[in-house]
Amino acid sequence: MAASVAAMESAPVTSFKERLSGHAARVEQELRRLLDARERAGEIVRPERLLAAMRHGVLNGGKRLRPFLVIESAALFGRSGEDVLAAAAALECVHCYSLIHDDLPAMDDDDLRRGQPTVHKAYDEATAILAGDSLLTLAFDILATESGEAARPPLSPRQRLDLVKGLAVAAGIGGMAGGQALDLAAEKDRPDEAGIIRLQAMKTGALIRYACEAGAILGGATFADRERLAEFGSAIGLAFQLADDLLDLTADAAAMGKATGKDAAAGKGTLPALHGAEWTRQQLKGLVDQAHDLLEPFGAKAAALKQAATFIAERKS
Amino acid sequence: MAASVAAMESAPVTSFKERLSGHAARVEQELRRLLDARERAGEIVRPERLLAAMRHGVLNGGKRLRPFLVIESAALFGRSGEDVLAAAAALECVHCYSLIHDDLPAMDDDDLRRGQPTVHKAYDEATAILAGDSLLTLAFDILATESGEAARPPLSPRQRLDLVKGLAVAAGIGGMAGGQALDLAAEKDRPDEAGIIRLQAMKTGALIRYACEAGAILGGATFADRERLAEFGSAIGLAFQLADDLLDLTADAAAMGKATGKDAAAGKGTLPALHGAEWTRQQLKGLVDQAHDLLEPFGAKAAALKQAATFIAERKS
Repeated sequence: MAASVAAMESAPVTSFKERLSGHAARVEQELRRLLDARERAGEIVRPERLLAAMRHGVLNGGKRLRPFLVIESAALFGRSGEDVLAAAAALECVHCYSLIHDDLPAMDDDDLRRGQPTVHKAYDEATAILAGDSLLTLAFDILATESGEAARPPLSPRQRLDLVKGLAVAAGIGGMAGGQALDLAAEKDRPDEAGIIRLQAMKTGALIRYACEAGAILGGATFADRERLAEFGSAIGLAFQLADDLLDLTADAAAMGKATGKDAAAGKGTLPALHGAEWTRQQLKGLVDQAHDLLEPFGAKAAALKQAATFIAERKS
Repeated sequence: MAASVAAMESAPVTSFKERLSGHAARVEQELRRLLDARERAGEIVRPERLLAAMRHGVLNGGKRLRPFLVIESAALFGRSGEDVLAAAAALECVHCYSLIHDDLPAMDDDDLRRGQPTVHKAYDEATAILAGDSLLTLAFDILATESGEAARPPLSPRQRLDLVKGLAVAAGIGGMAGGQALDLAAEKDRPDEAGIIRLQAMKTGALIRYACEAGAILGGATFADRERLAEFGSAIGLAFQLADDLLDLTADAAAMGKATGKDAAAGKGTLPALHGAEWTRQQLKGLVDQAHDLLEPFGAKAAALKQAATFIAERKS
């Protein structure tokens, strides 16, 4: 992978989507490998339906944006290979767990995800709950497991532990789960603008922020660089949500592969709904500038991450 | 705590319940402390309802058997203190997460747990799903967090990582989540006797086994002793399930504080239902003997764990 990173550093912006889909293919293969390995492990009676539901929820052709951020952030510090790919896959497991649980009838009650039936529709509610639980658990399993990679110095136990701790914080009550709880209450609580920003920083921002920080941990970065990557992640995490809400306001369901306009229909405030599309585009431009500035010290090595920031802000689906 | 462990080594069997409830009180206090600390951490908007639901699910006056096993197993190797208590609390978080999710309408659909409304009854389904998710996540957070304990050599990152890995395996598709999935399918699949044993070894056995193994990890035990403690945990885990199924067959709901006879009503086979009460009591006696034999090398230090094995096999609620 080191060679391909070098080759891409001076690549034109138009090749970004190829780079993203190339990483996505490798992450999908890694997710397949990790699930197959867990299925074979031990002399257990295999819960086939649960495993099938996990695969349905995780091998779904997503953009794999969070893994992309892990891989590219680690590459900034010269780290690539199996440990990076496994950690990237672990973050994707947590992302997919949250989608499976958020889609449940008791939560957002969505039937479609990326144009396919959601896990509780394709299987059943109990299996969907357990598939989410199992993917969350699997993520910690992956991060705690040595890859046995021979070609490079292994990650230290301290690095693996930092990865575990960071993921637990990003997924927990101060992160994704807490943010989803606040989002469910938003219809009634009607949070103000600061409240909406914080809710979203928890619900969707925390894992995107952490994806970039995890790359720095994998790369053995200094604390200052780790914090810089986390700040970069925060900026693009907020941009991701603003772009998502803007799409929710303007796009149609066919382009998105899922129901749209749901937040507005539920009376939930979003910043684009409050301030309009033009204001949102200005905010997005400011966030992309901020994200790019944070990466200046890394020079040309940061080209792919800069392109990711632009892509996140300007994406159409 | 070291002093009280020494004092109990030669205590009579009748004092076991006091020892169990003493540990339970300390674990409950630790769970309170850990939840309070996470609530105060960071400048987040606090998801109050979610935090209340987590407390409802975890601060419920349980026997805290798994934490007891962690504490007593660690004491075998001379380890006590804050790190042990925190790890014990982490395992209880995972136990309570599994109860909250298992009680959901889509799963076992239980309204009562220890005589109190289940979390989805006291709150709502979405909050119960998120409370379970958050307790599972919190457990990994706790294990990855240094206690800052000054009085003893700290746990090594390797020990903490082993704790994380072990918990992930015990909770995942080859453990609790996989076992619950098989249990949900048991009504239709009608597993044979070997299938029932394996299902239960995953669903309830894995975490009890791991509680004993975690104590050995905390205590810096040799691999052989770690394996011995895990085997002890397997024996009492199976005894726990047999005693539970025996109670389900014979006790009434008032004594159990929850619905009874449900497994039989659902057409699910249990070993006591297949073989009767007398056969079950013989099996329980054999498992207790096996558990006691495994602890012989530890001599008088293992008195409390031996009493735990007897208690588990003979408990009436």
